[in-house]
Amino acid sequence: MQQLLSFRQQSAPALTSEGKTAVRPNKTRLVRSLNEMASIGLQTDGSVCRRGFSETDVQGRDQLAAWMAAIGLNVRIDAAGNLIGRLEGSDPELPALLTGSHLDTVPTGGRFDGALGVLAGLEAIRSLQDNAIQLRHPLELIAFADEESTMVGCKGLVGTASDCPSDYATSNGESIEANLARIGGHWPSLSSAQRAETAVAAFLELHVEQGAVLEQRGHSIGVVEGVVGQRRFSIRVRGQANHAGTTPMDLRQDALVAASRIVLAIESMAVEHPGDPVATVGRLEVWPNAANVVPGSVTLTVDLRDLNPSVLDQLVTQLMQSLETIGEQTGCAICLDPQFEVAPTPAHADVMAMIEASAQSLGLSHSRLPSRASHDAQEVGRRWPMGMIFVPSKGGFSHSAAEFTSEEQCWEGTAVLLEVLQRLDRSLA
Amino acid sequence: MQQLLSFRQQSAPALTSEGKTAVRPNKTRLVRSLNEMASIGLQTDGSVCRRGFSETDVQGRDQLAAWMAAIGLNVRIDAAGNLIGRLEGSDPELPALLTGSHLDTVPTGGRFDGALGVLAGLEAIRSLQDNAIQLRHPLELIAFADEESTMVGCKGLVGTASDCPSDYATSNGESIEANLARIGGHWPSLSSAQRAETAVAAFLELHVEQGAVLEQRGHSIGVVEGVVGQRRFSIRVRGQANHAGTTPMDLRQDALVAASRIVLAIESMAVEHPGDPVATVGRLEVWPNAANVVPGSVTLTVDLRDLNPSVLDQLVTQLMQSLETIGEQTGCAICLDPQFEVAPTPAHADVMAMIEASAQSLGLSHSRLPSRASHDAQEVGRRWPMGMIFVPSKGGFSHSAAEFTSEEQCWEGTAVLLEVLQRLDRSLA
Repeated sequence: MQQLLSFRQQSAPALTSEGKTAVRPNKTRLVRSLNEMASIGLQTDGSVCRRGFSETDVQGRDQLAAWMAAIGLNVRIDAAGNLIGRLEGSDPELPALLTGSHLDTVPTGGRFDGALGVLAGLEAIRSLQDNAIQLRHPLELIAFADEESTMVGCKGLVGTASDCPSDYATSNGESIEANLARIGGHWPSLSSAQRAETAVAAFLELHVEQGAVLEQRGHSIGVVEGVVGQRRFSIRVRGQANHAGTTPMDLRQDALVAASRIVLAIESMAVEHPGDPVATVGRLEVWPNAANVVPGSVTLTVDLRDLNPSVLDQLVTQLMQSLETIGEQTGCAICLDPQFEVAPTPAHADVMAMIEASAQSLGLSHSRLPSRASHDAQEVGRRWPMGMIFVPSKGGFSHSAAEFTSEEQCWEGTAVLLEVLQRLDRSLA
Repeated sequence: MQQLLSFRQQSAPALTSEGKTAVRPNKTRLVRSLNEMASIGLQTDGSVCRRGFSETDVQGRDQLAAWMAAIGLNVRIDAAGNLIGRLEGSDPELPALLTGSHLDTVPTGGRFDGALGVLAGLEAIRSLQDNAIQLRHPLELIAFADEESTMVGCKGLVGTASDCPSDYATSNGESIEANLARIGGHWPSLSSAQRAETAVAAFLELHVEQGAVLEQRGHSIGVVEGVVGQRRFSIRVRGQANHAGTTPMDLRQDALVAASRIVLAIESMAVEHPGDPVATVGRLEVWPNAANVVPGSVTLTVDLRDLNPSVLDQLVTQLMQSLETIGEQTGCAICLDPQFEVAPTPAHADVMAMIEASAQSLGLSHSRLPSRASHDAQEVGRRWPMGMIFVPSKGGFSHSAAEFTSEEQCWEGTAVLLEVLQRLDRSLA
């Protein structure tokens, strides 16, 4: 369901260059913030470790809180652990524009995943202040809690967070209650983090692509069409374990032969689809897994992602047909067990158009692409108009020390973010 | 290289029915011996556990030694731990006929694997004695040491045993020295177990098939053409681990997709071969093996078996070609590492013919087939003329409580063994 955005006038949103000098972010200051944040949890291999709720996570959040307080934002932590800095607008009646991302990382995180979106938002606010520009809408900068594991922050804000503690698989294995308390959240009042529908106008997130599509296309800015939906299954293949010597080929029910056909069928169905879904068998385990035994059973996972729910339905139907055929051909019993399902979150068409127009006005090459990774925007976009801006990731690497986006590319993304925030502020009714 | 057997006369080996009543084994006594042996190490699930060198292995061997001593055999244990009972023949100049198998089992062994061959040999000797028949050749009944793991017994007797203790991967993890001492062997004089070329005339082993070929064919007796050779390889596939969401299908180097093609190529090459080789990928491991990561690398094993060394060469050539093609198609780097190689051991043509004639004379249906599992005969046959008799395994099951050969089938195999021993004794020069 596409949310509605209402604009002040029927005409196209106004361009920045209404006679005024365009406001641009300060690259030196942006890079300094990125470097200072990356120094918190920096590992010897160049990766960054700020697991959600860890000591380094708290240090990173404290640093951001200090920066936000220093420029006069109203800083608070909500019950879901989100760290929020609010800049009031000129019109107290208007809902807030939200921007931000996350500061927590995977164990071997990159310097840009999450941090860039937060610090670009900070730089955007600093740039507005440098130019004494006050927006009409309040602007809130948010560092969402624990994006890499539980997503408790963005879910809490949207109102989709589970109220059952055992639903939260935290990376340190401790309870969500204890973890939230550690970062200033408050589990018993989690529902208070949920924002009223009318309190938010739109959400904008800048993020590194974590893929190689923009690099391959030679484009500076990715206009995210939405965050793909995901279907995860486990497949169990049961054949007959047997002696690898004494069992003739025609008397075998080799579970690994069946599983190999499944892997290739899954790959083919994604490759041959006219769209660009992805399908992955990432995990596969063989039993008894001995060189001299015909495999008796195999379990494997299937992960399907696409922006279009009907494409996902279609892939699942095709998968079930393939499994039936392969079961008949190999004499193995095959079961498909659904694990979980995440609905796609489309970006708002008007916000996408505004990102394109902003990139255009900055002279930056751009193209549309889906986000195939999860982001805070995926949750926030379920309730409010959402837009995401991608900047290139060198070689597509992420979640490792090899994650890299140049200073220039970080600045370009921040410039687009700043421009879109201003356009949204001017255009929304 | 086929060993030479010289017969006493140019004519075909004499048939048993030279006017005398044919000697037949005693089924009741045979079954009682099998049951008594199976009670040593019997598990609650009906399987038998007499791991080589274990306490139950020693108990089983002690029982056999007592039975052999009771019928007047000259009982000894050689340095390689083989338990040997010798019955002298009428001609002290002649080399010995050997028969036997092993008493040790895998952890969940069946009641027949190994034990049948030993106890059938015992029953054959008892039957000869019942009928006051003295052979011309000495007859030795051997329970070879540790067939299921190190094969130190048969290798020691043949002279192919390594003199390096670390080459012996014993099932209890203790040294081969300590293990041999436990069963009455003697590591420092291992080489004394080796028999002189001229001391042995031929070796005959009765064994359960451990496969379902005889059952499928509805035949009672398998005339083993030889023990297949084996080539074992490890294959390493190196692709690029990547995000299962953000990596489009056309930018992947998915090591599991490449490995799946390899599994299917290996299966096809065995199935499509005009002979009946077997090829198995029994072990496969994926890294990092996470549902949301495109597999970065896979290792797998390949096990190839056939009676004909040139078929094995041909399969290896085909495998290398497939790996090259798959590497090119998938962008993965693929390495083939040889692990080990076991040369095939053909059975002796004259002994095979004698097994066939014996089955015929007993009115038992029979057919030729290779043995695709290892046996003591595989080693012994490298040096002396060897023959193997198979009896059916229900459903092809072995190495488990489900292993089953009926009393009648055990008796039929024993009757053929006894008949062939007499024919060999009469015919050999």
